[in-house]
Amino acid sequence: MLIPEPREDASDSARNERRKRAPKSDNLFSVEHRVMAADRARMNGHRGGILWFTGLSGSGKSTLAVELERMLFAKGCQVFLLDGDNVRQGLNADLGFSPQDRSENIRRVGEVAALFAEAGMIVVSAFISPYRADRDRVRAAHPAHFHEVHINAPLEVCEARDTKGLYRKARAGKISEFTGVSAPYEAPQAPELVIPTAEWPLARCVAELAAYVERKLALPLCARQLAPVRRAAEA
Amino acid sequence: MLIPEPREDASDSARNERRKRAPKSDNLFSVEHRVMAADRARMNGHRGGILWFTGLSGSGKSTLAVELERMLFAKGCQVFLLDGDNVRQGLNADLGFSPQDRSENIRRVGEVAALFAEAGMIVVSAFISPYRADRDRVRAAHPAHFHEVHINAPLEVCEARDTKGLYRKARAGKISEFTGVSAPYEAPQAPELVIPTAEWPLARCVAELAAYVERKLALPLCARQLAPVRRAAEA
Repeated sequence: MLIPEPREDASDSARNERRKRAPKSDNLFSVEHRVMAADRARMNGHRGGILWFTGLSGSGKSTLAVELERMLFAKGCQVFLLDGDNVRQGLNADLGFSPQDRSENIRRVGEVAALFAEAGMIVVSAFISPYRADRDRVRAAHPAHFHEVHINAPLEVCEARDTKGLYRKARAGKISEFTGVSAPYEAPQAPELVIPTAEWPLARCVAELAAYVERKLALPLCARQLAPVRRAAEA
Repeated sequence: MLIPEPREDASDSARNERRKRAPKSDNLFSVEHRVMAADRARMNGHRGGILWFTGLSGSGKSTLAVELERMLFAKGCQVFLLDGDNVRQGLNADLGFSPQDRSENIRRVGEVAALFAEAGMIVVSAFISPYRADRDRVRAAHPAHFHEVHINAPLEVCEARDTKGLYRKARAGKISEFTGVSAPYEAPQAPELVIPTAEWPLARCVAELAAYVERKLALPLCARQLAPVRRAAEA
């Protein structure tokens, strides 16, 4: 069996970076993971990365994330969506919506997203993530992978949409610490991308997102493994 | 753009199962994720799944996991390794080795592994995971994805190998709560697979693991998408 020589990729350095941070125990040994990010990228035709959506409830994060995942998958990308549906009910089922729990929620999502990116996947993360400090911590921990995308719609528009009826409940005092009503939303100051969902139709929003992925994460044709190795089929 | 009709896969039911469990907040809405497990499997040529390695320190978990990851990747599989190197230093850097922290460590690893499996990947999880109850909880939460693999070598053999010098430290009292010395190891009672690393050479161990993956997770040729859609290339 021919195994390509591992070559280092920019994102392989994330692994080395992580080793420098001290965990709670020092009885840990690093095993050399022989599948490098560069090899995964050649197989997939794109690098791994985190598209970190942030925005108010009702701004369109989930809708856009679902549409983008579907479009990228149809193009042959390895893509996965992290959101309240699959994270809040599993990994983070022990966390609520207090500032401290939101913070830990975002920290964990950031670490999981980084693992997915390391595995070569494009991960779309769709959480309100209202605190700048929480988002900046994810960026600082995984600078090579982090792409902040502000799904931007004015509060009035989000509240008027109120597709989930949550603003109504929040105004009636039935939900506490609701972002935009009784808890702050700190908009990104320098996001990689802004999608103004109150101004653009859905199709344009998705197209702009896909074009960004193509620019930032797709490999040029010449760098791809054009005939994917599917030797499992012959085993 | 042609998007295949989603068809439900056995593992798509995991998502529905998860919805039944109550998270801490009830203000969560499920968005339909339109990329189904069955579609991912057709693209990858295999289903997602968790190969949950368990065994004493020095039993060979990491060595086998690294070799298996490399072999499966070379065969064209989407595969990723979760271990202390990439989990303990990131997601679980806040956890130590007390029984409670070990338990939470395993819970989180199980949830992350299930996300990877849902994303279509074969995830190899290489943690001692000494407590039966912790492993059983992961199995119960994700029965469709969980494959328990006992990396089995007698304590004497592991201690004689002592490649990391940890048994020596543990016997000298320099590490507390060390599995097999000062903390229990509860061997699986009905694992899907046992790999006796003290009896078999490395090559046989890896070959048996790969054969198990082929039997349990690979799709028959006729069910695969033979010409992978890489439309990103033409965009």
